[in-house]
Amino acid sequence: MKVKIMSQDELKKLVGEEAATWVNDGMTVGLGTGSTVKFMVDALARRVQEEQLNITGVVTSTVTAKQASALNIPLKSVDEVDNIDLTIDGADEISADFQGIKGGGAALLFEKIVAVNSRRNLWIVDQSKLSDKLGSFPLPVEVIPYGSKKLFSIFSKRGYAPTFRLDNNGQLKHTDSGNLIIDLHLKMIEHPHDLAAELSAQVGVVEHGLFLDLVNTVIVGYPDGPKILEAR
Amino acid sequence: MKVKIMSQDELKKLVGEEAATWVNDGMTVGLGTGSTVKFMVDALARRVQEEQLNITGVVTSTVTAKQASALNIPLKSVDEVDNIDLTIDGADEISADFQGIKGGGAALLFEKIVAVNSRRNLWIVDQSKLSDKLGSFPLPVEVIPYGSKKLFSIFSKRGYAPTFRLDNNGQLKHTDSGNLIIDLHLKMIEHPHDLAAELSAQVGVVEHGLFLDLVNTVIVGYPDGPKILEAR
Repeated sequence: MKVKIMSQDELKKLVGEEAATWVNDGMTVGLGTGSTVKFMVDALARRVQEEQLNITGVVTSTVTAKQASALNIPLKSVDEVDNIDLTIDGADEISADFQGIKGGGAALLFEKIVAVNSRRNLWIVDQSKLSDKLGSFPLPVEVIPYGSKKLFSIFSKRGYAPTFRLDNNGQLKHTDSGNLIIDLHLKMIEHPHDLAAELSAQVGVVEHGLFLDLVNTVIVGYPDGPKILEAR
Repeated sequence: MKVKIMSQDELKKLVGEEAATWVNDGMTVGLGTGSTVKFMVDALARRVQEEQLNITGVVTSTVTAKQASALNIPLKSVDEVDNIDLTIDGADEISADFQGIKGGGAALLFEKIVAVNSRRNLWIVDQSKLSDKLGSFPLPVEVIPYGSKKLFSIFSKRGYAPTFRLDNNGQLKHTDSGNLIIDLHLKMIEHPHDLAAELSAQVGVVEHGLFLDLVNTVIVGYPDGPKILEAR
């Protein structure tokens, strides 16, 4: 028997299409951000058209808003809906116990606001995002510009190996909320809940990229196709 | 003996002048915001001129920046100085154990960034700001606009009696960072550290007005003059 080895994009497309089948008629759906989510939104828009699904999308970034809007998915803000039934988003790293790091695209703040307001969160990723423990992906921290150099020093002294996120022009990257991103190169996060509490309590930190206790289901793109993983 | 009863403004002026004597030559001084701080900045500027004090001010608001700059106090941002030796600021409520609530003027975020980066903090207030336990002054919470109605609902369900801060035109008040303020009408805060941790961990909360473990000295304007209170 011959096993077909798929390209990265074919795989992301299959994962996105699988995720789109999780949406039911009448749902309010949080739409994440990223390359796999893009395929999911395409597939979801096809379902809306073909099956006359009546859904509402809640977006986490201007990029996804633009795509979903062009594909005629009705959109509302998180404050305009009563509940979000399901949010489908990507992740930059997922540990064996389904904790995650997000923020590689600098949209972690709105992604987290949508995630914590969702009854259920589903992450869609390729196999490379899975790891035993978190930390190989640098942890993004969104910070207020005023005092950010002081925060940077504090993170340095704690051994967190911080770097300021730069944009394509080599300038400090500003988020949709006008803040900066400091990436912490931690390598291994032994106690993510402790670190999350520490970062949240730090004055000047708006939000961090640790997404904890939010997800029970992950759709992973393996070379031979998407697999659905459920938390143990 | 006749005791002279002073007006509120005379008293604030005396408190501000007393506070200005705490600044020494060569210091980097955090300059807070508010009506008593305004008198302190006036007095400090006179000392700078008369005594040729060489000081640097670090400001917490555009209002104080404008005043200090007009009075020729050299100013830098918190990120441009190595250390802040002393920060002098007002407070909206101070408990018997010198914990505080700030943010009545919606400048709590920058005030806190300056405070936590200061070696010493001095609060200057009138007697009416003192209370046994915190909570009679509504606790300001600076929040991201996206998802703020959801946060408001969460605070309501917890019995925190939230209200959105409005500006003079009855519109939602935006802070210097473009965020909103939700005031929590708590009446009595039994466990300020627990509440601080809870609010910090809440997604969408940028900062809250609980200023804990920052101050050992308070200058209080009593009807018969300023008194210096030291933490027990």
